[in-house]
Amino acid sequence: MTIENLSSNKSFGGWHKQYKHTSTALNCDMRFAIYLPPQANDSKPAPVLYWLSGLTCTDENFMQKAGAQRIAAELGIAIVAPDTSPRGDDIADDNAYDLGQGAGFYVNATQTPWAKHYQMYDYINQELPELVKSTFPVTDQWAISGHSMGGHGALMMALRNSEQYTSVSAFSPIVNPVSCPWGEKAFSAYLGDDKADWREYDSTELLRESSAKVPMLIDQGLADNFLAEQLKPQNFTAVAKEKHYPLTYREHEGYDHSYYFISSFIEDHFMFHAKYLK
Amino acid sequence: MTIENLSSNKSFGGWHKQYKHTSTALNCDMRFAIYLPPQANDSKPAPVLYWLSGLTCTDENFMQKAGAQRIAAELGIAIVAPDTSPRGDDIADDNAYDLGQGAGFYVNATQTPWAKHYQMYDYINQELPELVKSTFPVTDQWAISGHSMGGHGALMMALRNSEQYTSVSAFSPIVNPVSCPWGEKAFSAYLGDDKADWREYDSTELLRESSAKVPMLIDQGLADNFLAEQLKPQNFTAVAKEKHYPLTYREHEGYDHSYYFISSFIEDHFMFHAKYLK
Repeated sequence: MTIENLSSNKSFGGWHKQYKHTSTALNCDMRFAIYLPPQANDSKPAPVLYWLSGLTCTDENFMQKAGAQRIAAELGIAIVAPDTSPRGDDIADDNAYDLGQGAGFYVNATQTPWAKHYQMYDYINQELPELVKSTFPVTDQWAISGHSMGGHGALMMALRNSEQYTSVSAFSPIVNPVSCPWGEKAFSAYLGDDKADWREYDSTELLRESSAKVPMLIDQGLADNFLAEQLKPQNFTAVAKEKHYPLTYREHEGYDHSYYFISSFIEDHFMFHAKYLK
Repeated sequence: MTIENLSSNKSFGGWHKQYKHTSTALNCDMRFAIYLPPQANDSKPAPVLYWLSGLTCTDENFMQKAGAQRIAAELGIAIVAPDTSPRGDDIADDNAYDLGQGAGFYVNATQTPWAKHYQMYDYINQELPELVKSTFPVTDQWAISGHSMGGHGALMMALRNSEQYTSVSAFSPIVNPVSCPWGEKAFSAYLGDDKADWREYDSTELLRESSAKVPMLIDQGLADNFLAEQLKPQNFTAVAKEKHYPLTYREHEGYDHSYYFISSFIEDHFMFHAKYLK
């Protein structure tokens, strides 16, 4: 598998790098970014935090705006930030910001015209980690985190693959996509009308059926414009409580849905994951 | 003077806010951003760091990418980030990225068509601080810092107004604009052909003639693509040495001209300014 280095920036003694590669799962070229902390080398590989971004984002939003490299460098944790969908002129798309390119929702699409390229679940869960593991000085220990649509992705991936992730966290996640407008629109398009097929990508439904106990941290801003209509954290926390799931759920007065919120608490997320990545 | 709040985001317990106001100096509407640390209130106003950005930037680049709010909140320092030029459909501009809108170079233009709006020196040095002081809970203590073109702006402002700024710092500054392509192009356009008029905006020339002793910190990446042709720090450090100027000049192996460099060392700059802002 060929992989092409697109950019390199030294950052907090480590390196931020962007790469392009041809994805088998997605059937197109993809870009991702990695942050390698200063400690990482072949004789001392670093554990990895996978970061899944929200609607409209690429690999760049988190790397440029979250301010995570400082604490990642201190703790010796690598960060991998994939794109949020397949991309390209010949890839199916939609004019809306919440469907098509930039809005893959981390599912394997089954419907026309999406199924040919929109296989983000397989890409994130299997192809990309294999590529990362074979290319960079990283260990087999993975944590996963994300924001909004990416928070949905992180929780869903961890609940379905509890042996693969040491820990999971999310900012402002879409915890119950089967019952909010963003999720209903995307899942109808990508997965079709049979709502039974939607449940395997819905964190609240997965949690209800799961015996997984991946340690979990969720942060939610109370001034988030999407809280009541799209995010509905109470749907998830109610099930977590019932199941005695190891969830720490925190609400933050005054914080919104932006990276100003994420950057304010990203250090806590790295400290949380570091406990389990050791 | 009317001032309109455009956005507010809670960040590290404080607030990032964008404002629009009509500038008398620039003869147009302007946007700027302020970060108010959690400590700032009317009975306990905060000192201010003014940040001047580089070519093509607006008020947003530093606020989104530098990761400065964490340390500003810890130290109780407010940050003001102005735009880099007048803006608007009826404002003179140029297709190049290094002239016109986004490239004001912090000078008072004397030439047609620029003079009508491009009065950035007066805006940054006088009008904006007065507006900030009368609107927000801040003290009369100001530090100034900036990047590239904004590094030029910060050093030049401090050297010309040594009583006004407690301390000055810069990342990758254009220290000698009268003898580099960026500076020669902009100063010709804004100030005309008489190079004697350029000297009052050139930090290396100002330092040579100055008795100012504003404490100064400069960080320069050694993998910066613009180092040899545009930045030429040795022109400035040679004069500083000759004059026994209180300059700390640091070079950083492997770092480039990007915000990945700035974010890696921004904490040091705040710690430096905090010594003098107290």
